[in-house]
Amino acid sequence: MSQRVITLLTDFGTQDAFVGIMKGVILRINPTVTLVDLSHDIPPQDIVAGALILRSAAAFFPPGTIHVAVVDPGVGSARRALLVETHAAFFIGPDNGLLSLAAPAETVVRITHLTNAEYFLQSPSHTFHGRDLFAPTAAHLSLGTAPERFGPAIPAMARLTLPPVKSGETGLIGSVIYIDHFGNVITNITAADLQPFSKEGLLVSINTMRIQGIVLSYAAVETGAPAALINSWGLLEIAVRNGSAAQHFGVLVGQPIHLTEPK
Amino acid sequence: MSQRVITLLTDFGTQDAFVGIMKGVILRINPTVTLVDLSHDIPPQDIVAGALILRSAAAFFPPGTIHVAVVDPGVGSARRALLVETHAAFFIGPDNGLLSLAAPAETVVRITHLTNAEYFLQSPSHTFHGRDLFAPTAAHLSLGTAPERFGPAIPAMARLTLPPVKSGETGLIGSVIYIDHFGNVITNITAADLQPFSKEGLLVSINTMRIQGIVLSYAAVETGAPAALINSWGLLEIAVRNGSAAQHFGVLVGQPIHLTEPK
Amino acid sequence: MSQRVITLLTDFGTQDAFVGIMKGVILRINPTVTLVDLSHDIPPQDIVAGALILRSAAAFFPPGTIHVAVVDPGVGSARRALLVETHAAFFIGPDNGLLSLAAPAETVVRITHLTNAEYFLQSPSHTFHGRDLFAPTAAHLSLGTAPERFGPAIPAMARLTLPPVKSGETGLIGSVIYIDHFGNVITNITAADLQPFSKEGLLVSINTMRIQGIVLSYAAVETGAPAALINSWGLLEIAVRNGSAAQHFGVLVGQPIHLTEPK
Repeated sequence: MSQRVITLLTDFGTQDAFVGIMKGVILRINPTVTLVDLSHDIPPQDIVAGALILRSAAAFFPPGTIHVAVVDPGVGSARRALLVETHAAFFIGPDNGLLSLAAPAETVVRITHLTNAEYFLQSPSHTFHGRDLFAPTAAHLSLGTAPERFGPAIPAMARLTLPPVKSGETGLIGSVIYIDHFGNVITNITAADLQPFSKEGLLVSINTMRIQGIVLSYAAVETGAPAALINSWGLLEIAVRNGSAAQHFGVLVGQPIHLTEPK
Repeated sequence: MSQRVITLLTDFGTQDAFVGIMKGVILRINPTVTLVDLSHDIPPQDIVAGALILRSAAAFFPPGTIHVAVVDPGVGSARRALLVETHAAFFIGPDNGLLSLAAPAETVVRITHLTNAEYFLQSPSHTFHGRDLFAPTAAHLSLGTAPERFGPAIPAMARLTLPPVKSGETGLIGSVIYIDHFGNVITNITAADLQPFSKEGLLVSINTMRIQGIVLSYAAVETGAPAALINSWGLLEIAVRNGSAAQHFGVLVGQPIHLTEPK
Repeated sequence: MSQRVITLLTDFGTQDAFVGIMKGVILRINPTVTLVDLSHDIPPQDIVAGALILRSAAAFFPPGTIHVAVVDPGVGSARRALLVETHAAFFIGPDNGLLSLAAPAETVVRITHLTNAEYFLQSPSHTFHGRDLFAPTAAHLSLGTAPERFGPAIPAMARLTLPPVKSGETGLIGSVIYIDHFGNVITNITAADLQPFSKEGLLVSINTMRIQGIVLSYAAVETGAPAALINSWGLLEIAVRNGSAAQHFGVLVGQPIHLTEPK
């Protein structure tokens, strides 16, 4: 854990220097750290999107990586600031569920409530905890400061629950949980949920769209045609080859998706 | 000053590789430097926005950091190229006011007019000084080349002046100087300007919006409600909790904002 | 070649963590590499734009830089994955022409077909070769693994051909190949193509726009006026000083541009 990586995920956008400022604060404390941006274009205050993207990325980083995440509608309120240690990584951010998908309960080693002002920027503002609390905590942690120095252990944190996949009369009913940059429609349905269905017989329905069968990649269908596949997150995704499925079929986050297997 | 940081702030956007090219030029000269993006989404040719954002960020970086800023409507004209040394940092960019808010006159140690072609890319183009002048200057400076090697000292540089806060009959009149990614409305009014007013009695007016009192953070008001607060830049900011104040009240940069305290 | 730089160019956008994930994969294998983003805002699946931008940037990086490029409409199909070694650099990406402008045939030392699964992420997905093939290849290459370890040499790769400049009855006919962030219109016409014309007499025509003469920089014309110049890529560019030429004259990629010299 000597060569440390700190990742940053926020809804701060890239027009202002909010992210650059966090990096300046970190480099002042530890000039040798490696900084990686996960995303700063999380839709403003969309905790679910931030939590999904953080989970999608964390597993691919070196052991001991420190992930700082700030999507924080409650900044300045009583919500706690956290440092969460798991078997594989550290997560720093607000106690609003943002960290909870990347750090499932069974992997958590310790949750620290960040209360030790010794590690905050002096005279912290009430509106920019990314700069004043989370960035300096990450930097000091990367230097080897032990988690217990930052505050007391607490037993649990706020957890997000994704909408569950339900059993209907004729099959399963899932829902759309995210739409990515390409307009690919990502659902809460996992590869395991598809076990009862045959690869060729499965019918996926969403709005007016019907897709018969699961394919291995976009390239299995013609340009402009829709495809259903298990994506790189391990979830069922609806895509249009070289196009935007979300735009083509008018799909929005939250809409239901039906899986059936007509005889 | 051994482990050097170079920051980059431009209006180049992120679609083209203009920024990546500047980084390539820098890494060819000094492969061990740490590069940080402040912003590349400054509105095209908006020197005031660039200068404000550079000022907002510079103080948080390690001493000796080299800030390269390129918002340069006059590229190819007779405007000078500068290296400005302050007590805390170095600033490199065009002599059009862009560097002047981050490097106030009282902090300036030396202003160097970049004339020594030895440190330029060979056969520099007339349209890309970021690549051909500013990036190599930053890289050579990071290696320890003394400022006087790059050209002669000059006594002064172009300076931006933000619109002043005026005294009206019933209070103060400030103006909107920036709108950030979240639609927060940032004014030229400082915490010091607010001294004559009481925290609870102050009335902030802009367009049809009226806000009574100053709060410490967004979280002090309900979701969707407006708030006035001193932001992380030390300036009066109008925000709508978990929303866009600029959109909600139709606020644009340059509009006046009135501070009064009705009895 | 000890301090290695890896650049990344994709059409993945910056909302999702696709790019961050590639960086995590790379840092897991080689934590000391320097990562630089060229662009992640290539228009989705626009191989020509990606190839032009990669070519525009590669020459400015240190010798031995590893450029990873992923604009890949055919992911999951039979198109090959490549590692291309030139005299100056390495290029990794799909065999669809994306790498071909940056690595012209006369500079190529070896083209390796990436087939050795030992260097892939385990159980690679069919939809994210950037993460599973290209990123780990780049990381292992940066550690010194020889190109021949990744797979067999092949004689040639897919090559893009830009539309040629044609001779018309009264002059030359070129075409628009790219429009940049500022709305500058970039053509396939090189400085060499302009040799037969005089700098002052040349008439550039596109849609309803007529520009007389070539200038050295935007600053040679008034704000809001159009200018024709040889840009930093060495290509003829139509710009409007401090404005968008593309918007002003309704120019789109693919449109013809006429060069004549009326007596």
